[in-house]
Amino acid sequence: MQIAILSFFHYFTPMFKKRENIFEIEEGKFLSPKFDDNGLISVTTTDCSSGELLMHGFMNSEALKKTIETKEAHYWSRSRKTLWQKGKTSGFIQKVIELRIDDDQDSLWMSVDIGNGASCHVGYKSCFYRSIPLGPINNSEEIELEFKEKEKKFDPEKVYKGQPNPTKV
Amino acid sequence: MQIAILSFFHYFTPMFKKRENIFEIEEGKFLSPKFDDNGLISVTTTDCSSGELLMHGFMNSEALKKTIETKEAHYWSRSRKTLWQKGKTSGFIQKVIELRIDDDQDSLWMSVDIGNGASCHVGYKSCFYRSIPLGPINNSEEIELEFKEKEKKFDPEKVYKGQPNPTKV
Repeated sequence: MQIAILSFFHYFTPMFKKRENIFEIEEGKFLSPKFDDNGLISVTTTDCSSGELLMHGFMNSEALKKTIETKEAHYWSRSRKTLWQKGKTSGFIQKVIELRIDDDQDSLWMSVDIGNGASCHVGYKSCFYRSIPLGPINNSEEIELEFKEKEKKFDPEKVYKGQPNPTKV
Repeated sequence: MQIAILSFFHYFTPMFKKRENIFEIEEGKFLSPKFDDNGLISVTTTDCSSGELLMHGFMNSEALKKTIETKEAHYWSRSRKTLWQKGKTSGFIQKVIELRIDDDQDSLWMSVDIGNGASCHVGYKSCFYRSIPLGPINNSEEIELEFKEKEKKFDPEKVYKGQPNPTKV
């Protein structure tokens, strides 16, 4: 049903040009986003001042349309199965400074202004606060991560009081 | 069958800690990547010197293991359905400087050194060479993109001679 609604929405969005040939998609001037089998497109979000990677998420057609029109980031939450305006609960709205699309138009890049805020529901500025060591792997041992952000920007227990955690096991 | 093989591989990779509880996944010290229903995890790749977003792709368990061990970027090509070492054809290898994972461990960020090379099969340095205008949408008109990279770094017809284009309509 969800897919049916998404397809219906997509069908009646002539602002998205129909994907017809590879040259037009790669070298053309029109927006022809490719949504996957679940009606979603990948979005990478970076900080407009530092360039830092803040988060990675997904949009459906409606989230993309709302993001373009309002200049505020909207995503599709896969774990909560709902359209989601980033910062609606926490107050950490992402103002979109630039939005780009990649060569085959199946991935978006969004440069956003979050002021002195944060983008990670765990409380860190970036979701990518842990580093994976590189080099030989010992197949019988778990790989230990290194924390790169040491301090949280906010206390998620206060900010998201009573809200379910979007992380799923 | 592909999924069966991926699960088999994942089962015998004790270096990936089993996902058991949310606190361990978000705040813990061990690598517990979440692969999606197709056995894939999202990867965002940036240039280690400029911070610029180069590309977005996917890895399966094997690509992640090879990337960690060799310090060279390996991906899973969804269009070609194969493990793929970036730069094997073009020569534009990505040397991995840092690899991070996000809060719920379902997305990777890779900072890479590509020297004076490029990462986009169309010939541009970054795959994200076109910008989407922001603001009100005219529902009856297609959205026109703006080219942000004006010059290609290489000629894909020479570099990928005879290879099929990974972009699919």
